[in-house]
Amino acid sequence: MANVQYPSILLEKAVNEFAKLPGIGNKTAMRLVLHLLRQDTATVEAFGNSIIKLKHDVKYCRVCHNISDTETCNICSNPRRDPSTVCVVENIRDVLAIEATQQYNGLYHVLGGIISPMDGIGPKNLEIDSLVERISQGEVKEVIFALSTTMEGDTTSFYISRRLKDYPVKLSVLARGVSVGDELEYTDEVTLGRSIINRTPYATS
Amino acid sequence: MANVQYPSILLEKAVNEFAKLPGIGNKTAMRLVLHLLRQDTATVEAFGNSIIKLKHDVKYCRVCHNISDTETCNICSNPRRDPSTVCVVENIRDVLAIEATQQYNGLYHVLGGIISPMDGIGPKNLEIDSLVERISQGEVKEVIFALSTTMEGDTTSFYISRRLKDYPVKLSVLARGVSVGDELEYTDEVTLGRSIINRTPYATS
Repeated sequence: MANVQYPSILLEKAVNEFAKLPGIGNKTAMRLVLHLLRQDTATVEAFGNSIIKLKHDVKYCRVCHNISDTETCNICSNPRRDPSTVCVVENIRDVLAIEATQQYNGLYHVLGGIISPMDGIGPKNLEIDSLVERISQGEVKEVIFALSTTMEGDTTSFYISRRLKDYPVKLSVLARGVSVGDELEYTDEVTLGRSIINRTPYATS
Repeated sequence: MANVQYPSILLEKAVNEFAKLPGIGNKTAMRLVLHLLRQDTATVEAFGNSIIKLKHDVKYCRVCHNISDTETCNICSNPRRDPSTVCVVENIRDVLAIEATQQYNGLYHVLGGIISPMDGIGPKNLEIDSLVERISQGEVKEVIFALSTTMEGDTTSFYISRRLKDYPVKLSVLARGVSVGDELEYTDEVTLGRSIINRTPYATS
């Protein structure tokens, strides 16, 4: 649909806005806009206003920087969560992913990215100072690094570990090994090697 | 991300609105919403308002029912287009597709769908009466059926052809044959059979 002559400027504007979204091309944008156009006015207004209202009213938790409707997010303010453990993640989606496992009962710290000199992101652009400040208060006993297993993720974990080296806090990292459901012959050598070195006791229960 | 516990009700609402779009699941919706959230307020407002404004202000051409910013669309009101030929299409996207070929200089008639008893769509739900009315005025000399090559498309063409049988108008249909770039052995038998029956003179120019 190169060089499409749109029959309406309003249609063209809406399609162009949708086509700016990641992974949405011109044809998909047109399909989405025409789909919305077939809905009634209230539905379209609910759609358009939901994102505007989110942008206007969104807050970030002053403790962990997770997205929130209140000053302190509902994880940080939940008395049944363990405040002595803090899991360091890159972004909000990682919080949701870990929460979905229902295997973690501590708190989080959302960095807002990882150190990536190629993209011009250094420690000052991330919520690292506030993490150090948080640890310095003494309540946290363990920091879990749950960052991407990439060079940038490893660099970020290493940088933070150096910043925290004078505090009496245990540092740990997510276990790395063969994914559940993976076939061994297709697992990469580094992962497979690590999973042999870090093998765990076999439990039948 | 089943049973995700959203950290923000506003976020949840926005994600749910995006996930209603065709082909957008919960994970993609989350990715799109978080992408927009990283943009500045003006960008987010431009996005949200573009679709609301389109829905509010959109018009449909009173002649061909194509989407338009004005009472009569810019194809129908273009004096350089041939008003004696009308191409009957299912929807607006088909108009854009044919316009993109730059091979057609006549006008259109957008039915707004095709006859599909399974979906409860009959002739009364489509712009067929207005097409007959348009032909009855005598200016149109040829009607081109450019509908899907499905049973529903064929049924719609047949129904319209019966409604127009008393008017002195030539009826034609898009050529059906082997697609440009297709390998012959993978072309279905019906298409290949038709393309032999409707073979055209070989031109070397």
